[in-house]
Amino acid sequence: MPSFIDPEHQHQHTSKQFDHELLDIRSRVLALGGLVEEQVASAVKSLLEGNVELAERVIADDYKVNTLEVSIDDECTQILARRQPTARDLRLVVVVIKTITDLERIGDEAKRIARHALDMVGHFPRRNQLSEIEELARYVRNLLRGALDSFARIDVDAALRVVQDDRLADREYETILRQQITYMMEDPRTIPVSLNIMWSARALERVGDRACNIGEYVIYYAKGKIIRHISLEQLEEDLRSE
Amino acid sequence: MPSFIDPEHQHQHTSKQFDHELLDIRSRVLALGGLVEEQVASAVKSLLEGNVELAERVIADDYKVNTLEVSIDDECTQILARRQPTARDLRLVVVVIKTITDLERIGDEAKRIARHALDMVGHFPRRNQLSEIEELARYVRNLLRGALDSFARIDVDAALRVVQDDRLADREYETILRQQITYMMEDPRTIPVSLNIMWSARALERVGDRACNIGEYVIYYAKGKIIRHISLEQLEEDLRSE
Repeated sequence: MPSFIDPEHQHQHTSKQFDHELLDIRSRVLALGGLVEEQVASAVKSLLEGNVELAERVIADDYKVNTLEVSIDDECTQILARRQPTARDLRLVVVVIKTITDLERIGDEAKRIARHALDMVGHFPRRNQLSEIEELARYVRNLLRGALDSFARIDVDAALRVVQDDRLADREYETILRQQITYMMEDPRTIPVSLNIMWSARALERVGDRACNIGEYVIYYAKGKIIRHISLEQLEEDLRSE
Repeated sequence: MPSFIDPEHQHQHTSKQFDHELLDIRSRVLALGGLVEEQVASAVKSLLEGNVELAERVIADDYKVNTLEVSIDDECTQILARRQPTARDLRLVVVVIKTITDLERIGDEAKRIARHALDMVGHFPRRNQLSEIEELARYVRNLLRGALDSFARIDVDAALRVVQDDRLADREYETILRQQITYMMEDPRTIPVSLNIMWSARALERVGDRACNIGEYVIYYAKGKIIRHISLEQLEEDLRSE
């Protein structure tokens, strides 16, 4: 399994310092990923428990995600300018620039969910409305975990699993939508709660989409292949035939 | 007003070919922008007119957006590897990589709106539901146009106007949401139509957000400053004091 710095690769660098910088960027992306995972987990918890304090903390902490993202972005641009990397190193830097954009936007989705949690305070959702969101959240958090793991280990198989599993999250999300529409039509008083559930479900679905993007970047990094717009079937075929 | 290739700048390049490549990238980004504008316009038209054929064409044409984006992305990576640009040229390539990601996602939003148009076929929205969407769409399309113009001319003032005006699009969007909720609570039979209107309004709001991102990249390119996460007040202050 290729890792960011393999021995064969390392001696090609003119500078140990450059290796160190690439390692540093990698660990900072994982730190950003960890922070974003926490934000999503707390946002979902605040929604399920109607926890105002926790929702407010998620909203207040979003600046940490933004600050870290800007700082890594800046570091990437500096590396491009100073080191002028080529081939695999260049792909790594490009992948990092793209990955942190998605992580920052996942942070935005967490903030959105926290806002919906605040909107729902004082309303009483049905028990099964929450359990459906809980299940989707569990699913999507696993996708994000999988994407970050595949990035940490440059594990193409794990990345491909994230890309595949995202389809199921989309289906789960559509089921929630259909159910909420049924509730709303049965009893219009449930509309405000149902809408907050629907928006939160959509935010979670987008977290899944972005985890899927990260999986695709990992495959691009490892294989040098842009896969974003080819079909999943084609991708599996391509990877098998290599 | 700085442009991509100003005479002072040009003689620094070791190769005329490189200048040509940067001009080529720029014109391809604008071609992608034009295509995406068309997709948004057609999607909105299909929604307002209940035009099935047009909606289906938008969905079918999304691959063109994707193909062009992948091809520009690829060209950028090749330029980074081959030319190893620094300073302003490097910032341009990074800005192009980010801009085309947003343009491609705007294409996705157009596809979403076209899907909502198909969902609404056979339903009859109230006249004012459509006129509200029409107004938001006009507003958001102007934002996108402004963002692409500011990119074409590297016009920081125009870019700043896009960033400022996006706030108003957000407010317009929230007004639509509140109105739809009122309709749904008055008459639950309107729920399916209202939801499609709400999803479409949200897709338009996101188009505005992404136009705003592009405006920010233009400012970053021109000023060498990452502005995504500072407040609008701070940004205006900074630009005034330069």
